[in-house]
Amino acid sequence: MRIEIDPELVEHYIMKLGTFGAYGDTGVWRVVYSPEWVGAMDQYAAWCGDAGLTVRRDTVGNLWGVLKGTEGGKSIVSGSHMDTQRPGGRYDGALGALAGLIAIGALKKQFGTPKRTLEAVAFCEEESSRFPTTNFWGSSAIVGRIKPGAAETIKGYADETVADAMRSVGLDPARIGESRRDDIDTFLELHVEQGPILEHGGYPVAVVDAITGIRHKKVTLKGVQNHAGAFPMDLRKDPMAGFAEIASGLIDNAHRMGRPAVTTIGRIAVDPNFPSVVPGNVEFVVDARHPNEAVRQEMYARHDAFMRGVAARRGLDITIEQLLDHAACPSDPGLVKLLHRAAEKQGVRVFQMASGAGHDSQQMAAIAKVAMIFVRSKDGRSHTQEEFSSIEDIVQGIRVLAAGMHELAY
Amino acid sequence: MRIEIDPELVEHYIMKLGTFGAYGDTGVWRVVYSPEWVGAMDQYAAWCGDAGLTVRRDTVGNLWGVLKGTEGGKSIVSGSHMDTQRPGGRYDGALGALAGLIAIGALKKQFGTPKRTLEAVAFCEEESSRFPTTNFWGSSAIVGRIKPGAAETIKGYADETVADAMRSVGLDPARIGESRRDDIDTFLELHVEQGPILEHGGYPVAVVDAITGIRHKKVTLKGVQNHAGAFPMDLRKDPMAGFAEIASGLIDNAHRMGRPAVTTIGRIAVDPNFPSVVPGNVEFVVDARHPNEAVRQEMYARHDAFMRGVAARRGLDITIEQLLDHAACPSDPGLVKLLHRAAEKQGVRVFQMASGAGHDSQQMAAIAKVAMIFVRSKDGRSHTQEEFSSIEDIVQGIRVLAAGMHELAY
Repeated sequence: MRIEIDPELVEHYIMKLGTFGAYGDTGVWRVVYSPEWVGAMDQYAAWCGDAGLTVRRDTVGNLWGVLKGTEGGKSIVSGSHMDTQRPGGRYDGALGALAGLIAIGALKKQFGTPKRTLEAVAFCEEESSRFPTTNFWGSSAIVGRIKPGAAETIKGYADETVADAMRSVGLDPARIGESRRDDIDTFLELHVEQGPILEHGGYPVAVVDAITGIRHKKVTLKGVQNHAGAFPMDLRKDPMAGFAEIASGLIDNAHRMGRPAVTTIGRIAVDPNFPSVVPGNVEFVVDARHPNEAVRQEMYARHDAFMRGVAARRGLDITIEQLLDHAACPSDPGLVKLLHRAAEKQGVRVFQMASGAGHDSQQMAAIAKVAMIFVRSKDGRSHTQEEFSSIEDIVQGIRVLAAGMHELAY
Repeated sequence: MRIEIDPELVEHYIMKLGTFGAYGDTGVWRVVYSPEWVGAMDQYAAWCGDAGLTVRRDTVGNLWGVLKGTEGGKSIVSGSHMDTQRPGGRYDGALGALAGLIAIGALKKQFGTPKRTLEAVAFCEEESSRFPTTNFWGSSAIVGRIKPGAAETIKGYADETVADAMRSVGLDPARIGESRRDDIDTFLELHVEQGPILEHGGYPVAVVDAITGIRHKKVTLKGVQNHAGAFPMDLRKDPMAGFAEIASGLIDNAHRMGRPAVTTIGRIAVDPNFPSVVPGNVEFVVDARHPNEAVRQEMYARHDAFMRGVAARRGLDITIEQLLDHAACPSDPGLVKLLHRAAEKQGVRVFQMASGAGHDSQQMAAIAKVAMIFVRSKDGRSHTQEEFSSIEDIVQGIRVLAAGMHELAY
């Protein structure tokens, strides 16, 4: 049976939600626990009410819209995060939170009360755009991964603690532990792709079979600071030369390994960073990802060997510090099949792919079966105000999501 | 006849001058028109008086110690700059100012009044460490290259104008033009090498036959900012990848051209400079130098062709803006020969080389014959508090300088 999703409602929700923290023409700047975030969460709660869902706010600030099932048991949940990059666009996170709400609202309207309990969720935080180390803060609380007292010690870019920020919006950081849940059976997350693969392949929607594994390494190359004119090339220990060779090598390495291997060097700090001084130190972060665990480790081994080889040959001291490591997170195979079936029944052409970005689903996988749905991104853009997905594609994605939830809950 | 330079006096002057703006154990942080700079200039004036020189301060803040010759005519001048990097060491600039003063003082003591007028000079500014575009400020004023009103418009790193800084130490910026001179015949500048060539070659001192030509280009690579995980390598337009390839290529190019070609990339700015974002823009400065004008132009042509080729192949927009261009400045051949003769007579082994750094002598060449003397730098270090030259080497250098001035003035 065809599941109907109202495109006008979808568009209205996306545009309206984007006004909370609107930035420039199409951007959104909405960090967790900010006034804009409070406004968006209140709006989301009001829409949950409109859809006939019972609103519940947990102790960390996640917002749940619940449609009780007649048979009880563990819940089928769908949603994503309400916070954004600084600035991000209207779709990253927000679209998934809305998709859960819209899908459940549509199912209720079309099919009435489900057997299994359905819940929409807007996670409070995922992007770590206010606090450098809080990423997945909302879903981490749900799976019990936030250590007691952590909110009091984690500081933001503006030097405030998470705890202070929570108190400013009426939340008690001592009660974060109460957000933990053990009654979720399935978590489905719809998200914009944030890449160009669907666009290039001509698909509106994808079923995501895994979330990539990721490692961040901070690499410091220490050479000898010298005068840019007076020091001959052949005697230099120039960490910028080492950096350039390493960056080229790592990027080429990932490129040659082929999709879905990726390696990015997006952050660099040079000391002293003056035009006429051979730098003394260059520090950079290597972000390298692969959804296949064995290939991921192989890539890291190649990267490390290359970096150490360049440093040794150039007489540079190298230190490699691991900042972050998340194993790949495969989707539940049964859910992947279910979503394919749902898409086929709804007449939606879907691609199957891994996610190169991290998502709350990785956290939720600790307590529930998970899978994701991707919606095509224009030009693959994200984390920018140019981010865009068409309402047509979004409706297709929500129809697949709703059809999947229908099979699980009715 | 052996010219005697008192090593204890030399060491005392260096150490004492280094107390004005002392930074850390051995550094000096003394920008133009600062209280530390005023203190150092006053100390220099006092020592000029001790040596029997007449002190004169000009309208831009240069300080002159004059020993009138019996026959008049144009002056034989030696000195260097009193300002430092932030922080620099005790030797860069300061040593040359002291060398002129010590040499003339020693000549007066040993040989009495000269025929030709001798002058020691401490230039007010050379490093552009307080104002990004004032470099050679002191010597530029002497040769008449500061445009009227420039002091009112040039702003410093701390946003003050040069004019305000001048007024704060009692100088009238409207009178800068009065610093111009046309009565200097010869300018000799002693300076630390700031490189490792003398140390590697086993020479205490060098006669400098040219100051290298230098060009600074600001290069901007514009790609497409994207998510570090979701965007496949083969579809990226990553300006960091382009930068890495360009930096490697330019550095290799200069290296392969051999001494004295140098190319440095010391400054880079990445936008947005986040670990998980493929950057949208990378901006960097290429500092490339060669003392032979034809080879210099050939190097720039190769650099530019390479940069444009990489950008085109990677689909990056490239803009190349010239920030600075100084032609190479050959020393006066007669003075080079004279300094070699002087060194031989004083029993000092000297090397002959080009300067890879810029110096006030380049400016002075507009109104006078110029040549330079280099003193060996420990480990080739400069623009750092670790900068060091031994008193033994310094004394040898001053003896060559004094012997040269003796031949010219007595």
